[in-house]
Amino acid sequence: PGVPALPASADEAGSSVTLTEGALGLKSTDDRFAIRLHGLIQADGAVFDQDRTELGNGTDMRNAKLIVKGHVQHDWGYKFQVNFAKEDNRQLEDIFLQYRGFRPTTITVGNVKQPFSLAFLNGNRNATFMEFAMIHEALVPKRRIGLMAGSHGEHWTARLGGFGNRVQDEDSAGDSGASVVGRGVWTPVRSQRRLVLAGLAGQYRSLGDRHRVAIKSRPGTHVTNQRLVGFGPHTGFAPITDARSVTAGDAQVAVVHGPLAVQGEFVHKRVGRKESHFDARGGYVQASYFLTGESRASAYRPGKGAFGAITPIHPYGAWQVALRYDTLALNDDGMQGGHAQNLTAGVNWYANRHVRFSANYIRIDAARPGGPDNRANAFAARAQLGF
Amino acid sequence: PGVPALPASADEAGSSVTLTEGALGLKSTDDRFAIRLHGLIQADGAVFDQDRTELGNGTDMRNAKLIVKGHVQHDWGYKFQVNFAKEDNRQLEDIFLQYRGFRPTTITVGNVKQPFSLAFLNGNRNATFMEFAMIHEALVPKRRIGLMAGSHGEHWTARLGGFGNRVQDEDSAGDSGASVVGRGVWTPVRSQRRLVLAGLAGQYRSLGDRHRVAIKSRPGTHVTNQRLVGFGPHTGFAPITDARSVTAGDAQVAVVHGPLAVQGEFVHKRVGRKESHFDARGGYVQASYFLTGESRASAYRPGKGAFGAITPIHPYGAWQVALRYDTLALNDDGMQGGHAQNLTAGVNWYANRHVRFSANYIRIDAARPGGPDNRANAFAARAQLGF
Amino acid sequence: PGVPALPASADEAGSSVTLTEGALGLKSTDDRFAIRLHGLIQADGAVFDQDRTELGNGTDMRNAKLIVKGHVQHDWGYKFQVNFAKEDNRQLEDIFLQYRGFRPTTITVGNVKQPFSLAFLNGNRNATFMEFAMIHEALVPKRRIGLMAGSHGEHWTARLGGFGNRVQDEDSAGDSGASVVGRGVWTPVRSQRRLVLAGLAGQYRSLGDRHRVAIKSRPGTHVTNQRLVGFGPHTGFAPITDARSVTAGDAQVAVVHGPLAVQGEFVHKRVGRKESHFDARGGYVQASYFLTGESRASAYRPGKGAFGAITPIHPYGAWQVALRYDTLALNDDGMQGGHAQNLTAGVNWYANRHVRFSANYIRIDAARPGGPDNRANAFAARAQLGF
Repeated sequence: PGVPALPASADEAGSSVTLTEGALGLKSTDDRFAIRLHGLIQADGAVFDQDRTELGNGTDMRNAKLIVKGHVQHDWGYKFQVNFAKEDNRQLEDIFLQYRGFRPTTITVGNVKQPFSLAFLNGNRNATFMEFAMIHEALVPKRRIGLMAGSHGEHWTARLGGFGNRVQDEDSAGDSGASVVGRGVWTPVRSQRRLVLAGLAGQYRSLGDRHRVAIKSRPGTHVTNQRLVGFGPHTGFAPITDARSVTAGDAQVAVVHGPLAVQGEFVHKRVGRKESHFDARGGYVQASYFLTGESRASAYRPGKGAFGAITPIHPYGAWQVALRYDTLALNDDGMQGGHAQNLTAGVNWYANRHVRFSANYIRIDAARPGGPDNRANAFAARAQLGF
Repeated sequence: PGVPALPASADEAGSSVTLTEGALGLKSTDDRFAIRLHGLIQADGAVFDQDRTELGNGTDMRNAKLIVKGHVQHDWGYKFQVNFAKEDNRQLEDIFLQYRGFRPTTITVGNVKQPFSLAFLNGNRNATFMEFAMIHEALVPKRRIGLMAGSHGEHWTARLGGFGNRVQDEDSAGDSGASVVGRGVWTPVRSQRRLVLAGLAGQYRSLGDRHRVAIKSRPGTHVTNQRLVGFGPHTGFAPITDARSVTAGDAQVAVVHGPLAVQGEFVHKRVGRKESHFDARGGYVQASYFLTGESRASAYRPGKGAFGAITPIHPYGAWQVALRYDTLALNDDGMQGGHAQNLTAGVNWYANRHVRFSANYIRIDAARPGGPDNRANAFAARAQLGF
Repeated sequence: PGVPALPASADEAGSSVTLTEGALGLKSTDDRFAIRLHGLIQADGAVFDQDRTELGNGTDMRNAKLIVKGHVQHDWGYKFQVNFAKEDNRQLEDIFLQYRGFRPTTITVGNVKQPFSLAFLNGNRNATFMEFAMIHEALVPKRRIGLMAGSHGEHWTARLGGFGNRVQDEDSAGDSGASVVGRGVWTPVRSQRRLVLAGLAGQYRSLGDRHRVAIKSRPGTHVTNQRLVGFGPHTGFAPITDARSVTAGDAQVAVVHGPLAVQGEFVHKRVGRKESHFDARGGYVQASYFLTGESRASAYRPGKGAFGAITPIHPYGAWQVALRYDTLALNDDGMQGGHAQNLTAGVNWYANRHVRFSANYIRIDAARPGGPDNRANAFAARAQLGF
């Protein structure tokens, strides 16, 4: 509106300075070009009180992301997100181009989040707890390189894509398989303070020449590398062998009523094997409440069918308390992957739209058939800044 | 020209906003300082039809580059280019400072492309095919840390440099050797629609305490890690031993006549060994044609002696078809490195100056003496966005 | 002052363009938001004349840093610094958020330099010699994830913090220990041309479940990976075992009188072991002189208690000569870590505030008891550009 035009190069109509929400950005006045630089810092610490398996007190740079996003020539968007806190071959996160000429329908090519889990699509910047539920690491399909179409209306969101490898996937001698993943969301009630959401997602993946599958999960905090249940690296158990395909479904519900939000997901994942199949199940249910009156409903973004950032109402920030129960069952097909359940209590202080501090207490209970129970208490804290 | 000056900090005369070609940039009005942020995304997929060696259908984040470039105090340029799609110790690409006070002569220090191959100096953002010819991986010297001088006139370009290690070269106990590399280009005909280019380049490298040399090449697509010919990692053959030096030459020709462009390079590389030497040879010849009338001649940049980006004439973009034959011969000195030849047909749609889609069909034919022929068909596609 | 306001987004009061010292930056006119993009390039080369252990002539991309820093909502600062020249799990450097609401007191959370050594807090961008003294790699605590408070007055600077792991510390099964580190600095004389500084720093670290400690140092240049003295990787000797704690102290003095600067540090580090302890000692003393009249005193920054960048007085830049003697003694507790002493002569040309060229000659002398002396001469040079 009142932005004075600065003629830039000969082939541009002009450009204006923006500094929206602290991000460094430029946009041409004709909106043909835009670019912004963002970042996210999450620093964690955790202490454990365990009776058996050593979990390891310590600190962790949980996320250190740099993000460049924008668009060129009106309709071609892009996102370039690198997470330096990850191991080197997992650093590339969202790296894609997106055609937006058929708004609200978009077509995306590159490395993207496969459209499956509500919590994962929310992202951990905006998550209620410091870590996702155990199903996230164990059962939820993450980012892969592929082609995805998405659209949304007033009361629905849908995405469907075909996907190949992970990025920097070194073992590329044989066929690396391919998957089809889709998600549909219905939001019959949607206002600034109220929301009812129901969603379904499904994945089918043919594993190509890769016949080994790891299923495992950290116990509620990323400070430890221990996986008390599951198969594959860090579990002490071999991965599932003779695997041919993976089929998974996710049912998800969220209800927001003013400052109160209730959300749950249940995932069933079947690993098709040469002569049998392995079934894994898990889910979570959580409730959160803003003591300072904010509502998660106002942060809902229909374009991605998930929640975005909370903006505190008061100058002293927003306070939120939350409770989650989550479970993961991995005993099937004669394999003893174990069964785990966590109870997590959390409190968040959103100092402002960019800065947040979180504290989580986690009651961990994990056991394998024939083995002893691993019971532990974890206390974890996080400082977070997004720019 | 018509850019209003914005006085910035006390020690600056002023600055102006630029958003040239979608890049986030700032330049001081006195041109003492400039900085711009660029990026490149290339997402690939490929399927193979092979009779023997498994090549592995899959997807690949081919390139994910972030680039910061600019200058300080008028005459000191710099470039900072990181490619997150590479393995971690290859992520640093162009990282240099450059003195420009003797324009058009420049002096560059840092990690730079050694001045040798026309195709490599073009860069893969602007390449006609999805991948360079096989000589690129096998025979062409890539980036190294060194000191380089370059200059150009109306009809010529010359560069000469001395070079040491690659970046993040872990094996640094012994002497890592040193090289002298130079390239000269003559362009007797040069206009917006016509170009005749002839170039010669040479490399001499003393290998210091590193007596093992790997020579190998992927068969026309980066989606596979298989190298059907050559010596060293991923080939199933040991690297060349007892090596003392490498001497290489490159003859290069390009002719552009309106929308038609023809280009070829031939490389001969000799590995001097303790008591013998190994000779490798290879080259390519290619023709490309813009159905929409653009000419590669307009993209020629005499400063680097290579081609830059194409700007489509029409609002619906530019269409280009292309054909390449390339070969690589690695049987010598009693070693059976093999012989390979690829025939590649390609089509490119440049949606605009920033976005491009490519499809390549590659007929692969590779054999080692005494072994069977490896024949395969590959179909590869790419989505690319540069900002 | 005279900066015209550009209204940006609705929720911002406005923003203005800055291009201070070549950095790309934006700041809102109400100073609620600011962000700047910086970088540092250092390219090195070195040749050695050694009588015994091969050190390995070569080149090295010493540093390739990208830095984003700024603040959000007035009081919440951040820094995001990645060094691509490091091995992948050391690339994260300063990654922190910082509360500045109690100025001059700050509270910092994230990955930061532990407040210990004067030279390390200066940083290598502004260091007098190409490399820090040997105590830096061997004895000085570097960056860790933690919580730190700092403050300063006209004549003092103090910092105290509690710290956990390094970033991307893979071995996180057991407790990774914790440390308390503090530093106090007194500057009784402080003007633009004169400075007297005396400082003391201390570290206590409990090692948790990590009972092995490596102590080692390169001989004066980073181009070689050889460590002629010490314990652990690249030394040929096993790390110190049965370690339980580390206690260290650092006494530091700097005196600047016009163009002359003298500086010294002495570090004593004790590794507490199961039934004994190991004492390591080292230090340096150095003198530097600006032939062109600049004074290091003008670059002193009380906020960090260390020196910043030099600004040349003359258009042809600043010339500095310097000499340093440094030593490291690692024979104790029945272990033969060796004893090393280096004499380094250096010359620096600061072309301007952003560009610098350095040349160092190093006389290396390192020996282990019972073994022969390793004597070597090293000549190293560097090109540096900071934006």
